[in-house]
Amino acid sequence: MRWTRQACVEFDAEDVLGELRALFTLPDDRIYLDGNSLGALPAAVPHVLQRVVAQEWGQDLISSWNTHEWLQLPQRVGDKIARLVGAAPGELIVTDSTSINLAKVLSAALALARDRSPARTEIVSERTNFPTDLYVAEGVARLAGASLRLVDIDIDSGSDGGGGVRNAVDDHTAVVLLTQVDYRTGRMLDLAEITATAHHAGALMVWDLAHSAGAVPVDLHEADADFAVGCGYKYLNGGPGAPGFVWMHPRHAAEARQPLQGWLGHADPFAFDADYRPAPGVLGFQAGTPPILSLAALECGVDTVLAAEPFGGVAALRAKSTALTSLFIDLVDDRCPGMQVVSPRAAVERGSQVSLTADVGIDMYALVQALISRGVIGDFRAPDVARFGFAPLYTRFVDVWDAVERLAAVTDSEAWRDPRFAQRAPVT
Amino acid sequence: MRWTRQACVEFDAEDVLGELRALFTLPDDRIYLDGNSLGALPAAVPHVLQRVVAQEWGQDLISSWNTHEWLQLPQRVGDKIARLVGAAPGELIVTDSTSINLAKVLSAALALARDRSPARTEIVSERTNFPTDLYVAEGVARLAGASLRLVDIDIDSGSDGGGGVRNAVDDHTAVVLLTQVDYRTGRMLDLAEITATAHHAGALMVWDLAHSAGAVPVDLHEADADFAVGCGYKYLNGGPGAPGFVWMHPRHAAEARQPLQGWLGHADPFAFDADYRPAPGVLGFQAGTPPILSLAALECGVDTVLAAEPFGGVAALRAKSTALTSLFIDLVDDRCPGMQVVSPRAAVERGSQVSLTADVGIDMYALVQALISRGVIGDFRAPDVARFGFAPLYTRFVDVWDAVERLAAVTDSEAWRDPRFAQRAPVT
Repeated sequence: MRWTRQACVEFDAEDVLGELRALFTLPDDRIYLDGNSLGALPAAVPHVLQRVVAQEWGQDLISSWNTHEWLQLPQRVGDKIARLVGAAPGELIVTDSTSINLAKVLSAALALARDRSPARTEIVSERTNFPTDLYVAEGVARLAGASLRLVDIDIDSGSDGGGGVRNAVDDHTAVVLLTQVDYRTGRMLDLAEITATAHHAGALMVWDLAHSAGAVPVDLHEADADFAVGCGYKYLNGGPGAPGFVWMHPRHAAEARQPLQGWLGHADPFAFDADYRPAPGVLGFQAGTPPILSLAALECGVDTVLAAEPFGGVAALRAKSTALTSLFIDLVDDRCPGMQVVSPRAAVERGSQVSLTADVGIDMYALVQALISRGVIGDFRAPDVARFGFAPLYTRFVDVWDAVERLAAVTDSEAWRDPRFAQRAPVT
Repeated sequence: MRWTRQACVEFDAEDVLGELRALFTLPDDRIYLDGNSLGALPAAVPHVLQRVVAQEWGQDLISSWNTHEWLQLPQRVGDKIARLVGAAPGELIVTDSTSINLAKVLSAALALARDRSPARTEIVSERTNFPTDLYVAEGVARLAGASLRLVDIDIDSGSDGGGGVRNAVDDHTAVVLLTQVDYRTGRMLDLAEITATAHHAGALMVWDLAHSAGAVPVDLHEADADFAVGCGYKYLNGGPGAPGFVWMHPRHAAEARQPLQGWLGHADPFAFDADYRPAPGVLGFQAGTPPILSLAALECGVDTVLAAEPFGGVAALRAKSTALTSLFIDLVDDRCPGMQVVSPRAAVERGSQVSLTADVGIDMYALVQALISRGVIGDFRAPDVARFGFAPLYTRFVDVWDAVERLAAVTDSEAWRDPRFAQRAPVT
């Protein structure tokens, strides 16, 4: 069919997930396509924070660790996230940032792998992985006397990575660390297939779910993964810098040990023992005192994703997401001839975002700024990519239509040539 | 003089710091003597959080990293804390938890010490240091092939530690790690004297300022310390689990490197380079994305301490704090014969808290609960200590009087024998 704006309006009217948009407070005058970077504000947050601040902190003070169960918050929110990623209650904990959690998980995995075979001293990852993953892996490797080996996975190689990992893993590999959905291109890898490849070579598999959790179906048990980390502030809508999470397969619970031994990872923190005894399982991946205000906001964000459960849950969100991204690609192909789709065209190989680049001569940074000035919020990633995220909880089909209308207007008019759009801000 | 309640009321009326209490929202019906564990709620927090949530997150969304300078928040709040601990702008950064920050700092310090001499592989700390410090040190030591040596410092040995450190440091010592004010006893060490002892032995000095910053004068430059970490949620009033901070002496800025290499510690995070290049100086101690909501609350908390600057700043706060703790000790001596003061009696050797224990037969846990039931909030620390913190920003002399009245009533009546007070909550 030939798409029309009216068809998009009708699609939204019939969308069973459509009412979930009311769970968010969104700006009236902008189309927000950056939920892959910072999820929108759940409408419940101001009220919840008001309660946590005024009553719990202000009035009940230190007793709130017990009476308002602040101490259980990392587990309670963890159990909620577990439902979104195919994990069981008690296996997933909210703590620290994704970077710090990755350091814990990689350290634990390296130690486990070496216990099996001292020759396993290599972390294998992807050259274009999100930089923090590579930085953390390099830091952990140096500290542990291990090394980091980077492989290339071609964007067109399919969701199994086309052998990029298979050819790299051998009996020196301790851990394979990959991000399921690439932050730059939106390319999505097959969790189960690549995990099996790693295991076949005797290596452990660590997944970064930063751009997956809450947007695409993830089943960590079905994939038989070993460890996972993820981000609270993207599709989980937890707010700027919300804490991240750690999942560990229960088969490692007895043996795995991570080196960032803080008091809340102790089996009995309030015994104030001089010696560290890790709490059982993933609880031992906690370290210091968690930021309660940010955690309370994260719980509201996770609740927005769980609100989709009566409508089919993450599977339904995923169906809508692929419809949104496919529509965007169709419309861009149709109306923006200078633009090239960087993301995989096969929906099964694509996360919840579409990345574009352009013919030589178009400054993609300036193009993103020109679009922002017209009320369409995407973002730019060096060196030449414009990213558009389609969070299925609050993005409408009509938003996709209107966004491409404005993109076409920017490319047709070459509005991006305006010098004010070339001026770079610190965060781009 | 013989103290009276009326004298306390008059003291409060004449206290130039008295008006700062209005910067807080406090419960009407309780006397809060636990600001050493969780600082009280600054009255500005609800309004600031409302703005950060509703406008910055909700309306301005991802652009707030630039337009509302979220990216600069760790440095801006860090520069404010720097004014409280004798550090210069740019030397102190707010990031992660105290536990995680200690792991970064100890790792960096161990590496620096080994560069000087490979034989320096020992971290020296105190057996009764706050457990998280010991747990982190043990974890870092194991990872780095170093070891942890614990020394005893007697409570009565004076603010220089009475040789406990001096006798332990030698040419195997890489780092001395101490907490300035002991969490359990309130004993305060002399920053400059012990730092000089560590340096004399060729070791680096790391201070944990968790129970110091905001309550006692700290001059890191005068003490010539090497690194410091501290906590945001005690005397800095940053809210439950507020992020901590790291300070590094500028002489280490060029060489020091910490292994938890997250993207926000990169010299140019938004270049998305595959290779890690640490940001200069203490900026390289950042790792992942900071929890902005908790950070915004922390800024309000730090501002309450800075509000004392026109009245003499931390020196004036300290003068009031020692007056409060001295009054408490005098009154307890006078009215609670079964209680024994654990904290040093010399004010110069004591932080902003007083810890009590009791004759055999009195259950101090139950005693604390009995006091709480009468509206006096202190806390218990295993095995037998009741702690009372006197945050000078919001504690009044009349609060001290009333607290001791109720303590005397509890001890006189043996109210702590009520079985409901013996029931332990998870956080004690």
